[in-house]
Amino acid sequence: MLGVISVSSIWGDLIKISIFGESHGKAIGCVIDGLPSGISIDTKLINKDLLRRSAKSYELATPRKEADHFEIISGFFNNKTTGTPLCCMIENTDTRSKDYSPEILRPGHADYTAYVRYKGFQDYRGGGHFSGRITAPLVIAGSICKQVLHSIEPEIKFGSRIISIENINDKKTLNWKDYLKLDLSELKYPFINQELIPKVENRIKEVIKEGDSLGGIVECWITGIKAGIGNPFFDSVESELASLLFSIPAVKGVEFGSGFDLTRMKGSQANDSIRIDNGKIYTQTNNNGGINGGITNGMPIIFRVAIKPTPTIKKEQKTINYKLKENIIHQFRGRHDPCIILRVPVVIESISAIALLNLILKNING
Amino acid sequence: MLGVISVSSIWGDLIKISIFGESHGKAIGCVIDGLPSGISIDTKLINKDLLRRSAKSYELATPRKEADHFEIISGFFNNKTTGTPLCCMIENTDTRSKDYSPEILRPGHADYTAYVRYKGFQDYRGGGHFSGRITAPLVIAGSICKQVLHSIEPEIKFGSRIISIENINDKKTLNWKDYLKLDLSELKYPFINQELIPKVENRIKEVIKEGDSLGGIVECWITGIKAGIGNPFFDSVESELASLLFSIPAVKGVEFGSGFDLTRMKGSQANDSIRIDNGKIYTQTNNNGGINGGITNGMPIIFRVAIKPTPTIKKEQKTINYKLKENIIHQFRGRHDPCIILRVPVVIESISAIALLNLILKNING
Amino acid sequence: MLGVISVSSIWGDLIKISIFGESHGKAIGCVIDGLPSGISIDTKLINKDLLRRSAKSYELATPRKEADHFEIISGFFNNKTTGTPLCCMIENTDTRSKDYSPEILRPGHADYTAYVRYKGFQDYRGGGHFSGRITAPLVIAGSICKQVLHSIEPEIKFGSRIISIENINDKKTLNWKDYLKLDLSELKYPFINQELIPKVENRIKEVIKEGDSLGGIVECWITGIKAGIGNPFFDSVESELASLLFSIPAVKGVEFGSGFDLTRMKGSQANDSIRIDNGKIYTQTNNNGGINGGITNGMPIIFRVAIKPTPTIKKEQKTINYKLKENIIHQFRGRHDPCIILRVPVVIESISAIALLNLILKNING
Amino acid sequence: MLGVISVSSIWGDLIKISIFGESHGKAIGCVIDGLPSGISIDTKLINKDLLRRSAKSYELATPRKEADHFEIISGFFNNKTTGTPLCCMIENTDTRSKDYSPEILRPGHADYTAYVRYKGFQDYRGGGHFSGRITAPLVIAGSICKQVLHSIEPEIKFGSRIISIENINDKKTLNWKDYLKLDLSELKYPFINQELIPKVENRIKEVIKEGDSLGGIVECWITGIKAGIGNPFFDSVESELASLLFSIPAVKGVEFGSGFDLTRMKGSQANDSIRIDNGKIYTQTNNNGGINGGITNGMPIIFRVAIKPTPTIKKEQKTINYKLKENIIHQFRGRHDPCIILRVPVVIESISAIALLNLILKNING
Repeated sequence: MLGVISVSSIWGDLIKISIFGESHGKAIGCVIDGLPSGISIDTKLINKDLLRRSAKSYELATPRKEADHFEIISGFFNNKTTGTPLCCMIENTDTRSKDYSPEILRPGHADYTAYVRYKGFQDYRGGGHFSGRITAPLVIAGSICKQVLHSIEPEIKFGSRIISIENINDKKTLNWKDYLKLDLSELKYPFINQELIPKVENRIKEVIKEGDSLGGIVECWITGIKAGIGNPFFDSVESELASLLFSIPAVKGVEFGSGFDLTRMKGSQANDSIRIDNGKIYTQTNNNGGINGGITNGMPIIFRVAIKPTPTIKKEQKTINYKLKENIIHQFRGRHDPCIILRVPVVIESISAIALLNLILKNING
Repeated sequence: MLGVISVSSIWGDLIKISIFGESHGKAIGCVIDGLPSGISIDTKLINKDLLRRSAKSYELATPRKEADHFEIISGFFNNKTTGTPLCCMIENTDTRSKDYSPEILRPGHADYTAYVRYKGFQDYRGGGHFSGRITAPLVIAGSICKQVLHSIEPEIKFGSRIISIENINDKKTLNWKDYLKLDLSELKYPFINQELIPKVENRIKEVIKEGDSLGGIVECWITGIKAGIGNPFFDSVESELASLLFSIPAVKGVEFGSGFDLTRMKGSQANDSIRIDNGKIYTQTNNNGGINGGITNGMPIIFRVAIKPTPTIKKEQKTINYKLKENIIHQFRGRHDPCIILRVPVVIESISAIALLNLILKNING
Repeated sequence: MLGVISVSSIWGDLIKISIFGESHGKAIGCVIDGLPSGISIDTKLINKDLLRRSAKSYELATPRKEADHFEIISGFFNNKTTGTPLCCMIENTDTRSKDYSPEILRPGHADYTAYVRYKGFQDYRGGGHFSGRITAPLVIAGSICKQVLHSIEPEIKFGSRIISIENINDKKTLNWKDYLKLDLSELKYPFINQELIPKVENRIKEVIKEGDSLGGIVECWITGIKAGIGNPFFDSVESELASLLFSIPAVKGVEFGSGFDLTRMKGSQANDSIRIDNGKIYTQTNNNGGINGGITNGMPIIFRVAIKPTPTIKKEQKTINYKLKENIIHQFRGRHDPCIILRVPVVIESISAIALLNLILKNING
Repeated sequence: MLGVISVSSIWGDLIKISIFGESHGKAIGCVIDGLPSGISIDTKLINKDLLRRSAKSYELATPRKEADHFEIISGFFNNKTTGTPLCCMIENTDTRSKDYSPEILRPGHADYTAYVRYKGFQDYRGGGHFSGRITAPLVIAGSICKQVLHSIEPEIKFGSRIISIENINDKKTLNWKDYLKLDLSELKYPFINQELIPKVENRIKEVIKEGDSLGGIVECWITGIKAGIGNPFFDSVESELASLLFSIPAVKGVEFGSGFDLTRMKGSQANDSIRIDNGKIYTQTNNNGGINGGITNGMPIIFRVAIKPTPTIKKEQKTINYKLKENIIHQFRGRHDPCIILRVPVVIESISAIALLNLILKNING
């Protein structure tokens, strides 16, 4: 009798983030509970992060260009957090629902699984609650968390870059010291090698013509974190970050430090030698990505995230009409991103800031 | 004044698993709360899983050979679960604490981070609560969860294999249909290609001589799961599995389906075409590893886990004596596994069973 | 450096309710996550419950008469729940912030404790997030939960009445069979003895003249609940209900069944004799209020809640100006309810419906 | 197919307490996760608290005299907390299971509800997991929490007393200043008026002869708590305390400060006037029991708990044999307490210490 039941859109312990909304509904938003009181929040910085995610910033992104004006509804008084729940909302303005049918399932998308999970009662328009659009409130929440982290620990910085798009590769490996000063946030294409841009743009234009899409790998780093944050086992830094990273639509892989490459090393190579220099402890290499035993060691936290190509494509695909129970070949309409990865780095940074604030609040000393 | 604070060793929603104990303490164990009542548990199956993890099973494993006798303390009556908390304990019997010093930090290990995190009050002997030894109660818990899952859904099966050890590679890619019947659980070396064994054994013997260690990649699959289990965003199947997988010591990477390889595909290749056959819906390929939008689609769930080489090695390493604040070169004692990956597959299966039971209980229909 | 930190406004396990907003902010609202999909929600019933709570319904209530128009922002599609987060909002329309000073502390109110807790950054206008106004979204959430409960178990009914206002007492004790048909929800004054009304109205008018306020006792009952809902210890029916009841501003006592009167009985009187009649099990008395060992026994759940008199009064009071650190005698402005208990019964019912839905979802059979 | 499912025996946020065991099982125990590291724990103080709860201390208590020897299994190293999970166990030694039948339901007890809830698979011997015996690990956990609280805030003290047993009443109302020095923990009968003792002992002997039992009211106070601990709404001090207090078997009512008596006062009487004296803020009266808006105000926290008479009595009672589905009159065997309230005060204190530590850890400043 009941549709299946489960809370899915609230995360956290010491801060809790709740996200709500659908791609074609009235509004989308988030509630952040557990923020310390008295923290100044600069809404310009939030807008800057929203813009990095916005389709408005990329002519090669989806033709759906949302205004992304947000409003703070509660928990904010005299430009500072009050400590009680902070709610933010963004109205949806540029929806075109007629493109969507609940009966023809888009391969690679959540159409079928949402249908089974919610017994057909899901809002199917534009993917509903499953839409990448819901990452906009995550960026707001993450941007706020970054500012809170900054007021707790001014040294903490987040960075991200695109390592590869399909087979176009930027530099994979960097020395850990490079991350201390690397900041690509002002670049439209956050590559170290900016000469890749024409190659990338041409490739995107090609797949647009084909009605196809591309994926890639994003790398994210967090510097300025003290040693001793995190926990063994279930609340390890890797566990908390991964649980959030895998909640971003299209993420299918996560690796920390040297990740899968560590499996090809011997222990004597993989182990990062510990050194002390003027009383400061560091490691010579950073194969462990700044984390040992689930706890930060003071080195940069580094991880890479695999983003699959956007499943919504215009090209003909084999699928089914589930109501008619028949195999069909179908060309889907609906606007989409040919290369969503351009808009993803700030989402990765944002969700990492949420994870990190939660971890740091758990480990504050009395 | 306070040492840092945080719950780290309890996980779950509808079932909660609590693990406790230290490598060289009196006993290690787990409490499982939220089990349905009236489920028959066969302790022989638990012992079989414990044996797959046990150093007793591998002459090339650590010389510390623990008996791993477990006792069910509560929540079990007339060979069935009562529904109230089930507590299990294993006494530690083969400890040799004199090998451990709290002052010389093992590179790649949690010695330094645990020291900072717990302000020097951690039980440092054998890694204390950070030890891989604590995965024994996880295997017990997972083995019980497998049996509970089996009584809910008799079709569900867990499998695992070693894909690679250092640069020795077994077959990487299989057709999804192969997983439906693949069972390597009786094999000492769970390779598809058993002819790799002499090569592997020779390589392990070599690194033992060098006082070094090896890592590798484990693949795990779960078949017989219905579509519709899981959730969008924070409680996605990937999020729940990854949060547990990354809590296993030595795990540094996780990918689902084609994982990082998906980033090299176009959308039209990555999308799994949906087909219907006699009313049964399936996909032609399984690049998404059985999960779309965080929810199962009825195909086998497949993921791969990167295991770094055991950090405890006998070879000379550069490290520090933190009390003397001096750089040293040190040769550590303490028994260890030269190739822990041999004992890991059942741990991966077990922790996945915990994640899956939690997910399935969340999505049961009324 | 940090203001104190803690999540305070999210509750639940299988459903999670998040409330947000301040008395004089833009809007107040709630997010309900974990609702089953496909449940029809009748917004007229929500409005009916909101009206029972509204100051508009009582000329003797506060002169602040809020419109209480609510809007469903998400999680609702084609008049049914989608199963993803349902967000509701009410705009604040009738605020008068100039009456409030952050520096003169209202006795009996949260002014001082909020000031210490949030280090002076709280929104002090009208009590901010501490205001009874935030119970409006709780009524919305509870009204939705009632409807969900009704579709799971059509027999379940909620009732409430005022047992006493100051020293004006309605009938204290009823036979448990009386509750099966008792429904006072259409009455403006939910007394069994309606002849008390003139006495009550006169008493309220008296305290209005004095600039004072009154409290009282509310009784709530839930009928039609099957035996077997709830849990021993921490998730007992009493624990879950009490944790929510005590979160309502002004609640200072809760008792189940015969409550404090049970302490005057002997075991042989307090124990409810168990009987069977045509296969139906029931108890002769209901001193335990429908709950044994934290679990429902199929009898009506009955509890009483002590509501203290509204702390905001107009009468002169001894208090301090905390900035000047001086003792003063002060007459507060700000509109208030002389007898808030009139508006409380539906709040008690609503929050109980939230608790009960959470409990029932936890105990649904597979 | 499934027995009903739910976690019931884990509580907390920043510390989590898990309790396990059955009255007649091998052992009972608890796991405490989230303790700060480096806290000295004096096991003599734990034993002292266990003794206050022990039937050994009262000749008029149950003839079942358990040794209550406990052992710390983990999380404790060099007499200090390590910060990782602390597990404690007590073996059961004095069980007599033959007295119990699963088929004849004890009125007032959880026999029927546990049977329905766990579908007949519960351990029915001595009440199984529902037994008051499980409060022994709660006392251990609470005693540890008291010591941790003491090292965070040396001023914090817990006290408790019996206010009434059946109709024998000790002084009900005290001035709040009296609580600052009141300590009855060394008294066998924690009455202020020790002359009540012969009256009480005679009354208990009478009900023993009758095969009956008595209940009463316990008052508990916590002094030395700073203002600003706690939260509005769902994590209010009252909510957290009440949720734990109602998890103690036999508790049926809880009131804070003047509790139900507040409902008879006017606002001007109920409001505690705020005063400042040499910079110290306090209230003249303490009707609110040290809590406003869910947050401590620095005054003593005071609450009263209604304990129903032990349901297990020897007197003939009307009940059913559920298997035969017949009404019977039955005389139960099984040892029991004629006046459990004698052993309850330390349990109330202990569970309050758990609640308070959780609250304080949530509100520590960074």
